[in-house]
Amino acid sequence: MGTVPANTPKPPYYAVIFTSLRTEGDDGYGEMAERMVALASQQPGFLGVESAREGVGITVSYWQSLEAIAAWKANLEHREAQKLGRERWYSAFRVRICKVEREYGL
Amino acid sequence: MGTVPANTPKPPYYAVIFTSLRTEGDDGYGEMAERMVALASQQPGFLGVESAREGVGITVSYWQSLEAIAAWKANLEHREAQKLGRERWYSAFRVRICKVEREYGL
Repeated sequence: MGTVPANTPKPPYYAVIFTSLRTEGDDGYGEMAERMVALASQQPGFLGVESAREGVGITVSYWQSLEAIAAWKANLEHREAQKLGRERWYSAFRVRICKVEREYGL
Repeated sequence: MGTVPANTPKPPYYAVIFTSLRTEGDDGYGEMAERMVALASQQPGFLGVESAREGVGITVSYWQSLEAIAAWKANLEHREAQKLGRERWYSAFRVRICKVEREYGL
């Protein structure tokens, strides 16, 4: 998964906040989740990802541009995962596309 | 903590993504974390919060405006918590201020 917190560049760049509640049981979810992180990491414009689940799951991926996010959303293998996510794995989710305007840290 | 995923309005609005790694031991952290969520929820312009820790901690709070975020950052009790966070509780953190441009979900 790379560095955590993700070692993102100077803003502006983009973030996708994916917040979800899971259905019961694994049903192939764990394997697919790992595969999607690995696949996302190979996409053009990918900058990093941070993920935690504690009841609610929050995955934030960082991208160079909205075009990079759109290309990742349209990736065929990712589209299949999105379909299974809606059908099987998530009882609720929210995807938020954001422009990161400022960043600081320790 | 209200609804999860947070029941945010139609974009645009703002998100603060707070990603952190904790030091060892509680040392007052748990109580302060709860207090800060309760206090944030009372601030003008607060829209919701989502939080999970699994090794890395990710807390995303949602706000109506950059002014609301700046006012929350300047809140005196919150400033004391920020100071303790830097000194005691976090080995690393990153704060990202974002404009949410698009949102969809299930």
